[in-house]
Amino acid sequence: MKIKYELIKNDGGARLGKLRTNYGTYDTPMFMPVGTLANVKMLTPEELKAVNSAVILSNTYHLWLRPGEDIVAKAGGLHKFMNYDGPILTDSGGFQVFSLAKNKNKDITEEGVHFKSHIDGKPLFLTPELSIQIQNKLDSDIAMSFDECIPYPATYEYTKESTERTLRWAKRGKDVFNNEKQSLFGIVQGGAFEDLRKFSAVETVKMDFDGYSIGGTSVGEDKETMYNMIDWAIKYLPEDKPRYLMGVGDPVDLFEGVLRGVDMFDCVLPTRIARHSNAFTSHGKINLRNLKYREDFTPIEESCDCYTCKHYTKAYLRHLFVASEGLGGRLLSIHNIRFLIRIMENIRKAIEEDRFLEYKDEFLKEYLD
Amino acid sequence: MKIKYELIKNDGGARLGKLRTNYGTYDTPMFMPVGTLANVKMLTPEELKAVNSAVILSNTYHLWLRPGEDIVAKAGGLHKFMNYDGPILTDSGGFQVFSLAKNKNKDITEEGVHFKSHIDGKPLFLTPELSIQIQNKLDSDIAMSFDECIPYPATYEYTKESTERTLRWAKRGKDVFNNEKQSLFGIVQGGAFEDLRKFSAVETVKMDFDGYSIGGTSVGEDKETMYNMIDWAIKYLPEDKPRYLMGVGDPVDLFEGVLRGVDMFDCVLPTRIARHSNAFTSHGKINLRNLKYREDFTPIEESCDCYTCKHYTKAYLRHLFVASEGLGGRLLSIHNIRFLIRIMENIRKAIEEDRFLEYKDEFLKEYLD
Repeated sequence: MKIKYELIKNDGGARLGKLRTNYGTYDTPMFMPVGTLANVKMLTPEELKAVNSAVILSNTYHLWLRPGEDIVAKAGGLHKFMNYDGPILTDSGGFQVFSLAKNKNKDITEEGVHFKSHIDGKPLFLTPELSIQIQNKLDSDIAMSFDECIPYPATYEYTKESTERTLRWAKRGKDVFNNEKQSLFGIVQGGAFEDLRKFSAVETVKMDFDGYSIGGTSVGEDKETMYNMIDWAIKYLPEDKPRYLMGVGDPVDLFEGVLRGVDMFDCVLPTRIARHSNAFTSHGKINLRNLKYREDFTPIEESCDCYTCKHYTKAYLRHLFVASEGLGGRLLSIHNIRFLIRIMENIRKAIEEDRFLEYKDEFLKEYLD
Repeated sequence: MKIKYELIKNDGGARLGKLRTNYGTYDTPMFMPVGTLANVKMLTPEELKAVNSAVILSNTYHLWLRPGEDIVAKAGGLHKFMNYDGPILTDSGGFQVFSLAKNKNKDITEEGVHFKSHIDGKPLFLTPELSIQIQNKLDSDIAMSFDECIPYPATYEYTKESTERTLRWAKRGKDVFNNEKQSLFGIVQGGAFEDLRKFSAVETVKMDFDGYSIGGTSVGEDKETMYNMIDWAIKYLPEDKPRYLMGVGDPVDLFEGVLRGVDMFDCVLPTRIARHSNAFTSHGKINLRNLKYREDFTPIEESCDCYTCKHYTKAYLRHLFVASEGLGGRLLSIHNIRFLIRIMENIRKAIEEDRFLEYKDEFLKEYLD
């Protein structure tokens, strides 16, 4: 079955909704943890469930290279392979081509993108059709159209050309798409230009996808530009389909995204910073390696309900990081993911009670203090 | 309260017993997982409980350097610091001085050992008194006397001199020992010489410790010599105290140790080899990076009851190792520890039913096949 989005209510631009999937129905807006290589680094599916995760994201490019989509298919699909019985979204590989391939090692043609493997430098060629075929085999619940993630800044001319090509790629991918249980999202590009964002949104919606992503953000642009990119596109997206802002997980941006009508977010931020000893708190990020936590026998946050905060002190976590013990990153990943998911829970409650803006102000005041 | 050992029954030399501790009563013989730096690498206490672990071991030398015994004491002791409410044994640091300090960086005097930190080369001086004082502060359930782990081979003259010094060190440590809830073990040395092993055992027992370790094995000697080292000493140890063979965890050696009357074993082997993708199976060790597991969608062992075998395939574990994902080492550590603990469970059942030797033959036939 395809996913189904139901808009429950609005609070200003913010949307409270329900996303029905093959693996249960979940409330939106939601934050999706990233499991790049068929696992959220260090964590088990049970731990993801324990922090109330819903959809998780996995990366088509990475799984294409290792272990290869055919092995995942033979395992019975990504859910069985990685033992996760919740919904999974796969990206298209477009962002990895953008971020992992150096410019000189990347050649974008109408047909697809020639680039080199980040593992061994082997020449690779990814096309819109191949990206979809890989995702069909991975059997995720939600697949993404193959797009070019446009760098920032880029000229109007290049952005227009690329945005038009991404539309042709979306069509090509949709034409070969072949998995009845899987949903397919279109991706709005258009760079930092209002008319191109509108053009991309309108044309992508015409193709009638199961949901829409806003792509090409978090590529070095300032916050104001990023929020503009959302605003310029989102008003042309249909009310009855989910909207997904790709690669965004900074707490401030979650609020700004929800404010503008975004339903889904993903980011490696909570797990990546965790491995570098950084913890989210309601007063901003802290680095647990800091000497001042040496004898701090309190949890990261007294008010946090995560496994880590219920059982471990900052002094212990600091010790694990200073001694390079992997358990530190594991425990902190749990806390950081839970932190973002708890924000989304509170956001949903606030929308329900028509006080999203108040909660946003309240949270950000404390967080940015 | 001090620990209390009760011998339930013998089956030949093998002993079935009960070890009463401040954190519950456990059956022996037992295998103790190693939590070097106040954590069994990558694993939580809940995961250790789930594999039916009892006593775990932590390292005095490592905790002395990081985070320091005073911080652990301020946290309320090692149990509270690391959130483990089962019994904990700490070693004395003697083995780390032996294994981490290069010969030229180590100076053994009557007073103690001068050596250099393996972290930053800082000069360190560890004495029998200091080792005990650190362990008193760590507040483990079982502390070890500070000993010299004699290299192999060593001359008779050196071995005699060192063994006598270790006896004097044991006395000095016992004299300053000051923790009513903690038990203290003596360590039998004597190298590869029968009369010195006897001498060390007899003299150590005279000091009346709460239990006895057999030290100086697994230092490069052949298996026959190692088994001799046990035989020469163990007959002089009292029946009503636990006997602990230090640093031994190879499945074959567990059987040979139990056969000779050993009650407790510890080793980093299951977790260390796990991080290098090696798994214990009833047919010997396998390396999960092997290409032949690429499409092997069966668990490491169908008959294994561990979390990993119940949920993950060899193909998935291989993928995690090939892609350098830390979850692989975590999942395999669970399996390998459970494998050794299950051996001990089966050994205890076999002793109970007077068929230890049969079980030993049966297991080793399959394992070494």
